[in-house]
Amino acid sequence: MKRIAIDMDEVLADSNQRFMDWYERDYEKRISKEQLISKDFRDIVSPEHREAVRKYPHTEGFFKEMAVMQDIQKVMSQLFEKYELFITTAAMEFPTSLVHKYEWLKQQFPFIPWSNIVFCGDKSIIHADYLIDDHIEHFRKFTGQGVLFTSPLNVYKKWSPRVNNWKEVAKLFL
Amino acid sequence: MKRIAIDMDEVLADSNQRFMDWYERDYEKRISKEQLISKDFRDIVSPEHREAVRKYPHTEGFFKEMAVMQDIQKVMSQLFEKYELFITTAAMEFPTSLVHKYEWLKQQFPFIPWSNIVFCGDKSIIHADYLIDDHIEHFRKFTGQGVLFTSPLNVYKKWSPRVNNWKEVAKLFL
Repeated sequence: MKRIAIDMDEVLADSNQRFMDWYERDYEKRISKEQLISKDFRDIVSPEHREAVRKYPHTEGFFKEMAVMQDIQKVMSQLFEKYELFITTAAMEFPTSLVHKYEWLKQQFPFIPWSNIVFCGDKSIIHADYLIDDHIEHFRKFTGQGVLFTSPLNVYKKWSPRVNNWKEVAKLFL
Repeated sequence: MKRIAIDMDEVLADSNQRFMDWYERDYEKRISKEQLISKDFRDIVSPEHREAVRKYPHTEGFFKEMAVMQDIQKVMSQLFEKYELFITTAAMEFPTSLVHKYEWLKQQFPFIPWSNIVFCGDKSIIHADYLIDDHIEHFRKFTGQGVLFTSPLNVYKKWSPRVNNWKEVAKLFL
């Protein structure tokens, strides 16, 4: 059985949407996904809000009830039948987010056992056949095949194969 | 540069000693390391205490100021010069322990960057040349070389190479 490692933020979870919603809630300004193209959310907010926004992922409610990407539940269940699935998320930069991320994953994907959840930093430590991720940097030293999941940050980056949504993940793997 | 992945509990950290100390503190009974041979700590305490002992690793103070293994600081610093080091600890079974384990690692081994800390379950996901661990099970699907670190649980298990302490780790790798 081939193994697929799957990133969490911006692949499973719509974390940009969460940033946008919280930013609007706190500062009554709406940032669009178009504005995020090739940029990090923290780089486009007003400088005086940057520190507060940087703290969002450390806040308990941030991951709770965060939306999943479209079509994901069905595709993940189907992938689970044919592949060994691991969730591999770069969580170590924000250690206070660890338990919240874990709880979100258990809630959204209860069929993924705790043994197949990995919190890491440098993803070259991951041993898998495929890695679905929105950061090309993680593919550089990865020994399997990197599959780039489109996010505003990577739209102008060159990588093949690229998938734009979970329907395309299904087409590639099922 | 070759990569060594290193387990935390019973390899870096003397967690059995912590269990013994806390058990004595709470129930005024001393359990020896000899009693722990081939057994899990939770299996040898009085049945009525089992549930309380099971919760120790979830408790904030459990990892804080936990002792490291003998000779480790010097050997780890020397290994760090010659190898790429990752800490790979099976933490996912106890998600509330994640942040405490992280803080302990940062305190004890500040030279290990956050990017090289991995919290996982099934260690077959680890891509490294060597894995130093006290659980033989983790070597079964590991693609590198497993190095068994002696703990009371594994003294009668057959595996080669085996290291009994950090001086022997130094001898093997330096």
